[in-house]
Amino acid sequence: MKVLFNGRLMERSECAVDIEDRGYQFGDGVYEVIRIYNGSLYTLDEHIARFFKSAAEIGIVLPFSEAELKGELKGLIKANQVDDGGLYLQATRGTAPRKHQYKPGLTPQVTAYTFPIKKPVNEQENGVSVITEDDLRWLRCDIKSLNLLYNVMIKQKAHEASSFEAILIRDGFVTEGTSSNVYAVKQNVIYTHPASNLILNGITRRTLLELFRKNGWQHEEKAITKDELMNADEVFISSTTAEVIPVTVIDGQNIGTGAPGPLTKEVQKALQDNILSETAKVL
Amino acid sequence: MKVLFNGRLMERSECAVDIEDRGYQFGDGVYEVIRIYNGSLYTLDEHIARFFKSAAEIGIVLPFSEAELKGELKGLIKANQVDDGGLYLQATRGTAPRKHQYKPGLTPQVTAYTFPIKKPVNEQENGVSVITEDDLRWLRCDIKSLNLLYNVMIKQKAHEASSFEAILIRDGFVTEGTSSNVYAVKQNVIYTHPASNLILNGITRRTLLELFRKNGWQHEEKAITKDELMNADEVFISSTTAEVIPVTVIDGQNIGTGAPGPLTKEVQKALQDNILSETAKVL
Repeated sequence: MKVLFNGRLMERSECAVDIEDRGYQFGDGVYEVIRIYNGSLYTLDEHIARFFKSAAEIGIVLPFSEAELKGELKGLIKANQVDDGGLYLQATRGTAPRKHQYKPGLTPQVTAYTFPIKKPVNEQENGVSVITEDDLRWLRCDIKSLNLLYNVMIKQKAHEASSFEAILIRDGFVTEGTSSNVYAVKQNVIYTHPASNLILNGITRRTLLELFRKNGWQHEEKAITKDELMNADEVFISSTTAEVIPVTVIDGQNIGTGAPGPLTKEVQKALQDNILSETAKVL
Repeated sequence: MKVLFNGRLMERSECAVDIEDRGYQFGDGVYEVIRIYNGSLYTLDEHIARFFKSAAEIGIVLPFSEAELKGELKGLIKANQVDDGGLYLQATRGTAPRKHQYKPGLTPQVTAYTFPIKKPVNEQENGVSVITEDDLRWLRCDIKSLNLLYNVMIKQKAHEASSFEAILIRDGFVTEGTSSNVYAVKQNVIYTHPASNLILNGITRRTLLELFRKNGWQHEEKAITKDELMNADEVFISSTTAEVIPVTVIDGQNIGTGAPGPLTKEVQKALQDNILSETAKVL
């Protein structure tokens, strides 16, 4: 397995980072997870644009262009002969003696590798149970940074409760999942939290909003309360790896009929169609 | 230079961590910085107890006892012949294919090394300028975790404004600095934020509270407003590496007379006396 390590394709076993890499000591870096379908990186442009934006938000200057990086990532999936799977991409500020403040001119450490993904077919078809938890994260959730400890703690809590995900609630309002965006359907209107500092504006979320428009499905970017969530007709989550998964049970209580809802199924189909057409086009 | 790497003393150049170390991808770990004076680790017991507590808070089970770790750290400073300096200690949850949730039984990656510290004598004598910034961090600041990106961003902002530190304000109230605790003196009472989820309960902070009691200095663990901070008679900050540093200017405005205050100087002297007596005792 090859890893893209600062622009070079290296063997996985040869890759290691310094103990004073700022990513290791401060979580001082940003990342992306990109889905590979049919040997092609789905919504690559959007992921790479967000990657550069996240880096810029925290003052990391990446030493290459978006086009150069895209070329390297395509080389990586070719080298690893990945037809279906995932690509993880990360950049940290670089290595320096540990101090919170940093000197300009550090060389970022950029790492990318591919990994297998099992499409969550069962979850997509039958829906999942989730729990709700307080959203105690920082107030810059719009930056896709490596500071993911709270997400880890809560996702672990969900898994220990045999739940697929935890939906986070801040000041009474639904924000998002620990690694997904959240949507609630009420009287045929799809609600999801606006893209503010309180959520990560998912690439799948953006694709879905575009599909809502194209299909004429009523939708509103508006924060809903936990009560509104619990009383929704349908709830679903989206992410790069989950795609669209119906949420049928929250905190042990059925949502709607307790089965995947009809609009959720239409959204799933629209996304699958988009994936097929987009990745076929690129081939 | 030797590094303590999972219980073994290794050469610095031989130490490297995996790209899927959870510390590197999630900031999934905890740390301590300990001061070495006269060849002795100052307030070692308190730091190690907090290290184990931070680890337990996020579900990391360290595979050794506090006594064993202390023995290893003493071996490290002996190997590196450090008389005066700092020790950095970090534990991450370990290495595994990237997923937010984790399996029990991962082997934590534990790293410790020593580094030189220049005692900030000039700052301690003459005081420093600081800025104030919004506190946008997560609501578990009591855990000394590797999720330090906001602290990094704001400390950098302070340095770019030629300031020593930034004091964080949440909902109108002073919490702490990006890497220090904050104290304000008004009419001979010393105020500092209570040890809640909103601050890191510094080891130097705890030592100072003990010294306040011993010396009969009036003090209160109470959050003060930004206005109260700006109108204080004296302000100072504390940390393991800063010890006690007077804050003479905040956001360009003089605090009190604009010179280090008399009670601040007494606190500084009390801490230096404590350091001398504690580290002499251990020798």
